[in-house]
Amino acid sequence: MTLIKNDVNVEARAIEAKKASKKLIILSKEEKNQALLHLADVLEREYETILAANEKDLANGREKGFTDAFMDRLSLSKERIAEFAQGLREVAELEDPTGQVISDWTLENDLQVQKVTVPLGVIGMIYEARPNVTVDATGLALKSGNAIVLKGGSSAINSNQAIVEVMHRGLEGTKIPKEAVQFIASTDRAATNELFTMKEHIDVLIPRGGGKLIQAVVENATVPVLETGVGNCHIYVDKDADVEKAISILVNAKTDRPAVCNAAETLVVHKDWLAAHSDELIAALKENHINVHGDERALEVIPGAVLAGEEDWKNEYLSTDIAVKVVDNLTDAITHIETYGTKHSEAIVTENSEAAEKFMALVDAAAIYHNASTRFTDGGALGFGAEIGISTQKLHARGPMGLPALTTVKFLMKGTGQIR
Amino acid sequence: MTLIKNDVNVEARAIEAKKASKKLIILSKEEKNQALLHLADVLEREYETILAANEKDLANGREKGFTDAFMDRLSLSKERIAEFAQGLREVAELEDPTGQVISDWTLENDLQVQKVTVPLGVIGMIYEARPNVTVDATGLALKSGNAIVLKGGSSAINSNQAIVEVMHRGLEGTKIPKEAVQFIASTDRAATNELFTMKEHIDVLIPRGGGKLIQAVVENATVPVLETGVGNCHIYVDKDADVEKAISILVNAKTDRPAVCNAAETLVVHKDWLAAHSDELIAALKENHINVHGDERALEVIPGAVLAGEEDWKNEYLSTDIAVKVVDNLTDAITHIETYGTKHSEAIVTENSEAAEKFMALVDAAAIYHNASTRFTDGGALGFGAEIGISTQKLHARGPMGLPALTTVKFLMKGTGQIR
Repeated sequence: MTLIKNDVNVEARAIEAKKASKKLIILSKEEKNQALLHLADVLEREYETILAANEKDLANGREKGFTDAFMDRLSLSKERIAEFAQGLREVAELEDPTGQVISDWTLENDLQVQKVTVPLGVIGMIYEARPNVTVDATGLALKSGNAIVLKGGSSAINSNQAIVEVMHRGLEGTKIPKEAVQFIASTDRAATNELFTMKEHIDVLIPRGGGKLIQAVVENATVPVLETGVGNCHIYVDKDADVEKAISILVNAKTDRPAVCNAAETLVVHKDWLAAHSDELIAALKENHINVHGDERALEVIPGAVLAGEEDWKNEYLSTDIAVKVVDNLTDAITHIETYGTKHSEAIVTENSEAAEKFMALVDAAAIYHNASTRFTDGGALGFGAEIGISTQKLHARGPMGLPALTTVKFLMKGTGQIR
Repeated sequence: MTLIKNDVNVEARAIEAKKASKKLIILSKEEKNQALLHLADVLEREYETILAANEKDLANGREKGFTDAFMDRLSLSKERIAEFAQGLREVAELEDPTGQVISDWTLENDLQVQKVTVPLGVIGMIYEARPNVTVDATGLALKSGNAIVLKGGSSAINSNQAIVEVMHRGLEGTKIPKEAVQFIASTDRAATNELFTMKEHIDVLIPRGGGKLIQAVVENATVPVLETGVGNCHIYVDKDADVEKAISILVNAKTDRPAVCNAAETLVVHKDWLAAHSDELIAALKENHINVHGDERALEVIPGAVLAGEEDWKNEYLSTDIAVKVVDNLTDAITHIETYGTKHSEAIVTENSEAAEKFMALVDAAAIYHNASTRFTDGGALGFGAEIGISTQKLHARGPMGLPALTTVKFLMKGTGQIR
C-alpha cells in the first residue's frame, strides 16, 4: 500500500478528473452499468486489502481515544464491504439520469430545440469518518456520468485509500477510465481548501459531515456547493393535537435514530396542550430516557428539566436530549422555527386542518409534516433509491437528492442555417 | 423626491423584504396578477415623475462624459415607460410558477407525499445601468411570489428610486405589501457588499451586468448566486462546412447585436476550410466591417488582421471585432472552446453529422448549435416569455431562465400519526 504523504498535487488530481469526465460523457448506460458491476465484484473479492488498511485506521483511532460510536462508524468487515458492493449493484439497476429529453420543440423557423439532461462533470466530495461514502459517492457519480474527486476525513484515510486502489483495479478493463475516480491522499486541511476554489476543474462540491465542515465549505467555496444535512428539526404540538399521535411522533422522531439529521431536536408545544397533557408527556419522556432542556414555562411543568439557552435552540443534540419551548399560539411556534430551524424537516401535530395548512404554507423547509414523524425525510423511505444527501438549500435540489441532482441540462439546437 | 443618501440600513431593508415574503406566499395567483396590472397602470400614469428623475441621471451622465450607447441605455421616455408597463401586463398573463404539484404519491404506510413548487423567498437583484431591470425584475419576482431587494447602478439611481416610489404607490390598495419591493438607495459599493453575506434574509442573488460585476458577486457572496450572462461564444467552421451557411451564421452571430451575450466573439476555423474559402470569408468580413484579431495562421490569410493575444481569446468584445483561431481538427476546436469559453452558447457549422454529434456531446455549454446562429439563446426567441437572465452555471438553472428559476420545492407530507 502507498504511504500517505501530504504533498499531493490537488490541482493535478482535479485536472485528471476533468479530462476523464470528457470520456465518461460519451459512454452508454450499459457501459457505465457494466463498469459498476465489475467494480462491485472486485471490491467484494479484494476485501482483505481493505480490511488490512482499515486495521491501521482503527489502531490510530484507539490510540487517539475515539468514542465507541465513532469507532463503530469507522470499522469495516467482510460483510460491510459486501454491502458496499451490493449498493453499487443497486445503483447500476437505477434509471440513468442523463440523456433524458426534458422537452423538445421546433421554432417557427424550423430550428429544433432539445433540452436534455447531461452530467455535471466533476464532483468534489468532502466527507468525514464513514468509509462507505467513498464507495457510495463513487457509484452515484459514475452512474450519472460524472468524475469524482474524493477527500475523506483523516481518521479513515488508510481505509479510503485502499478502497480507491481496489476500485481503480475494478475499473481496469471497463470503459470507465480509472482517472474518473481521484483520491486526495492527504490529511492536510490545506488540501481540502484547495478544492474550494477550483472552479475550472470542479463543477460542484458536496460536503457530507458535521455542521462545521458544511459551514466551512459554504463560506469559503467559490465552486458551487450542494449543501446537505444539518437538521435542527422541530415537532410542534398544537393546541388541538391528538395526545397519542403527538407522543408517538415525538418519541419516534427523537429516539428512533437520534444521530441522524431528520431526528427531532426541539419540541415546540402549545401552552394549553401542555397544561392538559403534561402527565402523559412527562411519562413518555421518562420512559424513553429523554433529557429535557426547557424554557422557564417548560421547567415549571417538567420535572428534572434544565434551563435551555440560545445554544439549545440552535444546535443539533444528535442524542436523546431535547429542547422544549412553550408557545402561546401557532404564530409564535412558526416564528421560533423560522428563527432557529435549518430548513430541513418540520412537523405539526394537530387535528385542526386550518392550523396544519397554515403551518405547511408558512414554514420554510425542505419537508413539512402534518401528523407524521420527521424521520421520513430520507431517499430510501421516500422510494428514491440511492441518496447523495439531503439538501437544505433552495437552489438546484431540495430535500433528499437522488441521481438527478448530479445532472444539469444542455439545450441542443439543430438547424439548417437559421439566423436571427 | 427623496434625496439619495449613503447611510441606508441594508440589513433593515432585507429584513423587511423577508417579512413581506411571508405575506406573498399565501396570495392567490389572481391577487398577484391584479397587483401587477395595477402596478402597470400606475407606472404608465405617473411617467412624468420618472422622467423628471431620469433627467437628473442624464445630466450627471453628460457631466461625466458617458458614451452615447451608455446614455441611450440610461435614457427613458413616455414610450419606454409604457413598454415597462406592458411588460408587467405580459408577466401577469404567464402561468404562475408556484403551487405546481411536480409529483405526488402515497407510501405503503399511507403517508401522502407531495412535491410542490414554492417561491424562493427574497431575491437580491444587483444590476447596472438599465432602469428597465428595476421594473422587469420586480414583475418577475412578485409574479413568482418572491420579495425583492433592488440594488441598481449609481448612474441610474435617481431613475430607479423614482420607479420604485411609483411602484410602491402602485401596490397600495393591492394584496402585495409595498415592503415586498425594497430599494437600496445608495451609490456606495459597501451597500452592495453587505448583500453578499445576508444569508438569513436573502435567498438568492442575481447579478446582471458586465463580467466584473458578476465575478465580484460570485467570488464574494455566501448567499447562493444565479450567475448570468457573460457569453464568450464561438462559431466553429468545420472542414465540411457549407460556405453560405458558415458565412451567414458568422455574420449574423457577430453583427446582429454585437453587445448582447449570445453574440459570437471568436471564429474557430478549420485550416482546410479556410484555405478553400478564404475569398468568400474575407469579402464577408470586409462588407460587414468586422475587425479581425487573428492567430498567426489567420494573419497569413486575412488582410488587415492584427495579432490576437490571450486577452482576445478570453474576453467578450461586445463590438464588431472578432478573434479568429485556425485549427487542424475538431478536437483542437473543442479544446480551444473548453479553454476560453464561458459555457454560454457554442456553434458548429458542418455538413458532417458525425462531427456535429461529437461537438454537441463534448462541448460543455448551456446551448450548443449545429448549423444555426448563437443568437437564439434567449428566452424570447425560445418562447419562454419573460426572462430573468441567461444562466451560465450548471446548478439550479442553465440557459435562458424564466419564472420557474425563481422557485424551489417543498415536500408536503400528510399523515395520520405515521412513525418509522
